[in-house]
Amino acid sequence: MKKIAVILSGSGVYDGSEIHEAVLALYAIEKAGATWHCFAPNINQLHVINHLTGEEMDGTRNVLVESARIARGHIDDVTRLNVDEYDALLLPGGFGAAKNLTDFAVSGAECSINTHVAQACRAFAHASKPAGYLCIAPTIIPLIYGQGVEGTIGHDDAIAAAFSQMGGEHVNCQVDEIHFDERHKVLSTPAYMLAENISQAASGIEKLVDKLIEIA
Amino acid sequence: MKKIAVILSGSGVYDGSEIHEAVLALYAIEKAGATWHCFAPNINQLHVINHLTGEEMDGTRNVLVESARIARGHIDDVTRLNVDEYDALLLPGGFGAAKNLTDFAVSGAECSINTHVAQACRAFAHASKPAGYLCIAPTIIPLIYGQGVEGTIGHDDAIAAAFSQMGGEHVNCQVDEIHFDERHKVLSTPAYMLAENISQAASGIEKLVDKLIEIA
Repeated sequence: MKKIAVILSGSGVYDGSEIHEAVLALYAIEKAGATWHCFAPNINQLHVINHLTGEEMDGTRNVLVESARIARGHIDDVTRLNVDEYDALLLPGGFGAAKNLTDFAVSGAECSINTHVAQACRAFAHASKPAGYLCIAPTIIPLIYGQGVEGTIGHDDAIAAAFSQMGGEHVNCQVDEIHFDERHKVLSTPAYMLAENISQAASGIEKLVDKLIEIA
Repeated sequence: MKKIAVILSGSGVYDGSEIHEAVLALYAIEKAGATWHCFAPNINQLHVINHLTGEEMDGTRNVLVESARIARGHIDDVTRLNVDEYDALLLPGGFGAAKNLTDFAVSGAECSINTHVAQACRAFAHASKPAGYLCIAPTIIPLIYGQGVEGTIGHDDAIAAAFSQMGGEHVNCQVDEIHFDERHKVLSTPAYMLAENISQAASGIEKLVDKLIEIA
């Protein structure tokens, strides 16, 4: 049975992992006959957003601790992700991917990536094991695979330009489409960059996960 | 298009709504051709649990604000739930249903229920509009429908006994089964009271939601 490592970035679209995307991805992994285990960096979130008002709240929250809400405890510090134990990697979106895993939401194309997340993602690239990135998480792809790697975040001009500036080649996609860079074995799909409801998000995520597990 | 009101109790299995159940339920509603809107009480959670360690954490969190993480903002205070605008009601599980909506987790069969949640649930009962309760949330059913109402939380003897003590008639069910009390138009399924993975939880939830929408 194939094993998929999933890197989360908190729990909630505005400051962590997008919850629908994460659950749809985990469910799709099970439906495709594979198993999952989650990981997250043991760091504080960039900030905490009140998801009712959209405003910043007082307090600090830890990315690993909050991600455990989605994982129901099946989660470890990303420093413990051993590529030898997994067949593929998957990163759901949500602003956490661009606030906690990288600082893309703040620094755009000049962003940096969390060291331990980078190590984990690069280990899959170096081992030629496939990886899938959802929603805004594909902004991580150029940081891992370098010049010429292809990916999609849908069709947002500003983010696509930043993706290119970081060395990637952005490919426009609709919500129910996935892009597959065969040379790098990396998949991406827009999910909630474009989706207006859960079913639309699921359409691309389920395709991506099926392909990820097929090639794993 | 049928409209389903969903009452959440936070965001995370140990102190709020069970995230997988909530997302699976919302997705199932969409797949069945209906729409959803979420509600939650505007109160503080009983406590905050670190989902990595299972221990209580410092701090207070608001049930409505945390539930908004699952609802992606499509949520209102449960005091604003007008039964006339909806065709059916759905309550996912998670300990929040027994810690924030009622205090069943603390007081068992002697529990009380949040006034506004009770008003909302009773409004659906009085209007003869159907309702579905998942996981531990069926412990709310006797508080709403009174003597003789049937429901299931799976086959946990202690909770089944408390269900009976509150006036309900507990019916044992497997994870992929639902129980339908036709007289009261109320559905229940064990979900994560028994499920060992997302697919098992989905099996009962999808059946329940399909039935709920069929009879709505």
